[in-house]
Amino acid sequence: MRFTIQRDKLINGVSNVMKAISARTVIPILTGMKIEVKNHGVTLTGSDSDISIEYYIPIEEDGIVHVENIEEGTIILQAKYFPDIVRKLPESTVDIVVDDQLNVRITSGKAEFNLNGQSAEEYPQLPKVQTENSFELPIDLLKSMIKQTVFAVSTMETRPILTGVNLKLVDNSLSFTATDSHRLARREIPVSNAPIEISQIVVPGKSLNELNKILGDSEETVEISVTNNQILFRTKHLNFLSRLLDGNYPETSRLIPEQSKTKIQLKTKELLGTIDRASLLAKEERNNVVKFNAPGNSMIEISSNSPEVGNVVEEITADQMEGEDVKISFSSKYMIDALKAIEYDEVQIEFTGAMRPFIIRPVGDDSILQLILPVRTY
Amino acid sequence: MRFTIQRDKLINGVSNVMKAISARTVIPILTGMKIEVKNHGVTLTGSDSDISIEYYIPIEEDGIVHVENIEEGTIILQAKYFPDIVRKLPESTVDIVVDDQLNVRITSGKAEFNLNGQSAEEYPQLPKVQTENSFELPIDLLKSMIKQTVFAVSTMETRPILTGVNLKLVDNSLSFTATDSHRLARREIPVSNAPIEISQIVVPGKSLNELNKILGDSEETVEISVTNNQILFRTKHLNFLSRLLDGNYPETSRLIPEQSKTKIQLKTKELLGTIDRASLLAKEERNNVVKFNAPGNSMIEISSNSPEVGNVVEEITADQMEGEDVKISFSSKYMIDALKAIEYDEVQIEFTGAMRPFIIRPVGDDSILQLILPVRTY
Repeated sequence: MRFTIQRDKLINGVSNVMKAISARTVIPILTGMKIEVKNHGVTLTGSDSDISIEYYIPIEEDGIVHVENIEEGTIILQAKYFPDIVRKLPESTVDIVVDDQLNVRITSGKAEFNLNGQSAEEYPQLPKVQTENSFELPIDLLKSMIKQTVFAVSTMETRPILTGVNLKLVDNSLSFTATDSHRLARREIPVSNAPIEISQIVVPGKSLNELNKILGDSEETVEISVTNNQILFRTKHLNFLSRLLDGNYPETSRLIPEQSKTKIQLKTKELLGTIDRASLLAKEERNNVVKFNAPGNSMIEISSNSPEVGNVVEEITADQMEGEDVKISFSSKYMIDALKAIEYDEVQIEFTGAMRPFIIRPVGDDSILQLILPVRTY
Repeated sequence: MRFTIQRDKLINGVSNVMKAISARTVIPILTGMKIEVKNHGVTLTGSDSDISIEYYIPIEEDGIVHVENIEEGTIILQAKYFPDIVRKLPESTVDIVVDDQLNVRITSGKAEFNLNGQSAEEYPQLPKVQTENSFELPIDLLKSMIKQTVFAVSTMETRPILTGVNLKLVDNSLSFTATDSHRLARREIPVSNAPIEISQIVVPGKSLNELNKILGDSEETVEISVTNNQILFRTKHLNFLSRLLDGNYPETSRLIPEQSKTKIQLKTKELLGTIDRASLLAKEERNNVVKFNAPGNSMIEISSNSPEVGNVVEEITADQMEGEDVKISFSSKYMIDALKAIEYDEVQIEFTGAMRPFIIRPVGDDSILQLILPVRTY
């Protein structure tokens, strides 16, 4: 096996694939990176058995040659050393040669590394996902859907199903829903002419976080296909495969109040700053509680009290307010997360009582919904 | 006590003073920050009893008003909360009022924080250092002297004196020396007309690291004064006070070989890159050893071998070489530290034998000296 490759292309591919490789895996061969050289290009693979990532570098793209001197073959390299080596090599091209004894020679300029490779036969076969039944999304829209929901997944393993994001594609509408049972985040978009339906799958939050990091901001599309226990995200160079979570996701739609008693419109950034300040005095308490008091006029008082340290109070003016007075307390962390996920200048908060969940939406966009359960303090 | 201050000035002062405040101090009052308001300005103080930092904000500077509405007084505020509060306040000015019960009200725009202050009477008095016997240095020169030596202090508490940098001012020459007994770093500069002599003091490496972080790159000068057990660095706004280490610093001058058998000149960056690559395969071993083989011509071979992983070898061309052949092994970490500290394009390495310490200096500047003890492998 042999190939000569542009170092920047290799660095980029390696850093993507490394996102799936863990030093703490139970299958020793998975601490390695698979390199498969074919006449048409080089494929790098990493996997921790939950997530698998394949990155493809074609020999040529837009008339620019990336890979040369190809002799086909496959090898597994220790992922602990390979990325640093590639990153620190002195020249812009790298030559990699593997002999019959699996000795790997990496050269660039006058630097020469000789590493012990492992046979690719021991590397597990990645499941093949049927890609005929798939649908497409713009990459930036997928990233936005992930960012608006994934923060709300549970971090507790007591209900494993809640550590994932619930994905549905029904009636040409795609939705992502996440909840840790104290708050809920949902984003829904129309998908025209979707060739498949997905009644109910749950993708691990960790997988979506990694996917979000790997996908660049781009207007290209990603192709999504699903089997019983795997989901595949495919772009031009990347195959990102994640296992799905087993079990039934709770029915969340009935949690969402259909009517409200109070509607308040506020500037997102102003509210975010005020909540952030109100949360400062109780750093240790995990979900520092703030009080939100809207006594009917448009002045809203946000306050918090930490007996040992002191208190904080701030007034903020609503752009609009209709309905009953509200006095309610909630986790500042949940509110900050929700407001950061809403990429609009103005939000509407809908309350149905001091002990009922309340809803935050951007003004003029019903596709994003953030729900928070209040805390009893008043 | 009361004052109104420009928030950016306060943020800057607070972040400097915080460098001296530790949450883990044995004296509880030292977890707080002292704020002293006088008619001429505001002084912030932090201390962990090893290092003390005073930062002064005058009421006016270059015609710009920083502080207004002054009622003199002093208060101690919990340093755990105060910096975040100041940083996140909404407006560009901050008003701080303290009442007779030590309640502190911090307001900015519509945000109001009420904190419990502590009486300044409990705060320890900082030692007064006599500043008449002092000398001056440009700040950037002091920073450069610190950076070129402090990395070589010992991190082991077995010989506490070696955790500091030895400072001498004798015969109008100022020197900084640090050694952990495996390597040594020294920088010497002429100081014309120094009004004092300092025969031998040792400043904790930690103090110099903090000082280096706080001092901005500036052509202003810093005034340095020393007493038996304290050193004071004073700039326009800053008093930085550190305790000195007790004990006798070892005589290091006789460690430095006076003659050499081999002299090799190399490009600093090229050598650094090569050593860095040669160190990649033995990440865990703390001072990964590399071999340096100069067989008489100007080709030098740098190599390293980690039986489990593989080996690396690279050739580098010397710009000049005179004297005997050299085969020597040393810690790549020490070499990388030394080369990074030398801010010149070309270095000269002087060897006196495979088991004798060798010296690295910039070509054409004798004021910087780096010494490394080799490791026996050949």
